[in-house]
Amino acid sequence: MSSAAERLVCAVMAGGSGTRFWPLSRQATPKQLLTFFGDRTLLQATFDRVAPLCPAERRLVVTAAHLVAPVQQLLPELPAGAVIGEPMQRNTAPCMAVAALAALRLDPDAILVLLPADHWIADPAAFRAALVLAAQRADGGAIVTLGVTPSHPETGYGYIQLGPEVASGVRQVQRFVEKPSVEVALQYLAGGQHLWNAGVFVLRADRAWQALQQHVPAIGQALQPLWGLDPGSEPWQQQFVERFAACPSISIDYGVMEKEQAIEVVRLDAGWSDVGTWLSLAGMRAEGQENFSRGDVIAIDSSDCVLISTGPLVAVVGLQGIAVVATADAMLVLPAERSQDVREVVAELQKRGRKDLL
Amino acid sequence: MSSAAERLVCAVMAGGSGTRFWPLSRQATPKQLLTFFGDRTLLQATFDRVAPLCPAERRLVVTAAHLVAPVQQLLPELPAGAVIGEPMQRNTAPCMAVAALAALRLDPDAILVLLPADHWIADPAAFRAALVLAAQRADGGAIVTLGVTPSHPETGYGYIQLGPEVASGVRQVQRFVEKPSVEVALQYLAGGQHLWNAGVFVLRADRAWQALQQHVPAIGQALQPLWGLDPGSEPWQQQFVERFAACPSISIDYGVMEKEQAIEVVRLDAGWSDVGTWLSLAGMRAEGQENFSRGDVIAIDSSDCVLISTGPLVAVVGLQGIAVVATADAMLVLPAERSQDVREVVAELQKRGRKDLL
Repeated sequence: MSSAAERLVCAVMAGGSGTRFWPLSRQATPKQLLTFFGDRTLLQATFDRVAPLCPAERRLVVTAAHLVAPVQQLLPELPAGAVIGEPMQRNTAPCMAVAALAALRLDPDAILVLLPADHWIADPAAFRAALVLAAQRADGGAIVTLGVTPSHPETGYGYIQLGPEVASGVRQVQRFVEKPSVEVALQYLAGGQHLWNAGVFVLRADRAWQALQQHVPAIGQALQPLWGLDPGSEPWQQQFVERFAACPSISIDYGVMEKEQAIEVVRLDAGWSDVGTWLSLAGMRAEGQENFSRGDVIAIDSSDCVLISTGPLVAVVGLQGIAVVATADAMLVLPAERSQDVREVVAELQKRGRKDLL
Repeated sequence: MSSAAERLVCAVMAGGSGTRFWPLSRQATPKQLLTFFGDRTLLQATFDRVAPLCPAERRLVVTAAHLVAPVQQLLPELPAGAVIGEPMQRNTAPCMAVAALAALRLDPDAILVLLPADHWIADPAAFRAALVLAAQRADGGAIVTLGVTPSHPETGYGYIQLGPEVASGVRQVQRFVEKPSVEVALQYLAGGQHLWNAGVFVLRADRAWQALQQHVPAIGQALQPLWGLDPGSEPWQQQFVERFAACPSISIDYGVMEKEQAIEVVRLDAGWSDVGTWLSLAGMRAEGQENFSRGDVIAIDSSDCVLISTGPLVAVVGLQGIAVVATADAMLVLPAERSQDVREVVAELQKRGRKDLL
């Protein structure tokens, strides 16, 4: 049998429908389909990053049904059936189950890498090295997650409390911790025993299926009829909507990880962000740049701003720490620190029935 | 002969090409053609205000040649020839001379009211009352200007220092004062002997022509061949460009007013602004409104802002004192206090050759 790293199947979970990047993100173009860096969408960049480890025929995407066509267009190298559309939202555990089924069809010995579609990593080589190590551990039956060394007391991420070392560079997960207060985050940062939960999981595909059967049997029962079918094939198509609809809505973290006893964590030191808000972009500007700028932008006497346009020219003067985001039909201006409050705008648009802008 | 107020000819000086309201104002749509209040442009509102005093056939506009057609479209009630296009910029004294010539053709006893095209007045009735008083004084040979009671220590306006009273409600002008420092403006405000120069002049048309002949003879000589011709008529057209080009470029204030001995000032208490910058609009929002808003705007937790869109939806959160102005092809964001710095943006656009946006 080939080495663990040669048996990876990379499955990207691209079902997000976030509104935190409105007006760039819309129902038809959620965050993973946006381009914040270079000329590749976050989704494309996710596959670019693992390309040296994982050929196109071993890649999968699980996304929302209405995004299948645009995703296929962005990833023409993927084989037919590799982009699976969820007919409704069921959180991440059913997504993991579908990915495991698809991976097992590709390779009964597949090592499944579950990747969020919308993260940013500065050093892809370091990321791949962490995946290779995780794959080796996974091949022995472990469920492995990646943990990012914190660079600041972030309160927007979940944390992983480290347990004993189980191999060189690999620790047991003591426990998963929800988003902390800033005081607690400061303690974590000082203590050195907590990593950010990057939301990346590495485990054998058969181990994933087994864990789901064990911890969330309702998912196993619902999807069992799809076992052994090719995603996208006629028999799969005939049953998928009904079978997926029968799954309970539950997350991987809550449904599986919190119930498993022996999860391992590989440390990732690669410059990482979940690109969660406009504010996070302000911190990711290129060296020497005063602002994070994209598109047709003029910035005068301004700093720490996020300035993005996909349409009209955006000109700013004398701004500090402000996000200005413009598209052809809508624009947003707010202090980057208040990026979370974009949801208030989205709520107001819903209230006003402005479906054209959502 | 009919009363002075019945012999008014209102000439609006609409040659401005300001960039202070970029991106709303462009070369093709300077400030006077913009709509900040209600549904009338500043130019239209200027005539609306004097309509009860001055029928359409006694109205004139002197504007830039490329604005003649749009101005005619905005003011369809004006007779042919009433909109005169200056073929090049020559400041305001030649504009006054052209207006005087045109007014004299309409009525040899015309009392000429020279009005800026781009001001805002809260109480039009009070404004008209001031004009009637000014017209009565002008009929006796006086050159009359309107002076606005200051409401705050404005440093963006010229001031008029008051001399002795010459009639009820009419004072001699002691002198015209350039834009003062804030310290001096505070003294003026406390002292009560200074009014804002509203840039409105009222004088007999023949007096205007005589004053120009006397103080700026080069203008008199240049335009003399047009005497007695109808603006827009064939003979006028044949000579106008050449004759206007021969005029020196000089302002009414510098060329005429500072050289006249006995100018009178009528006090105007009508709520007045020259609508000079985005900041001035912030102060002109409707009672009870937190922001000055126009167009498709959502403002959450924001105050003292100027929020204008003629195109895309503009959504703002958590802003204080910021101007956000959006059009279909360009948008501007800056602290309202820094409204003057829009010129830096315009300069940058010129540098980048972005004529499409100027």
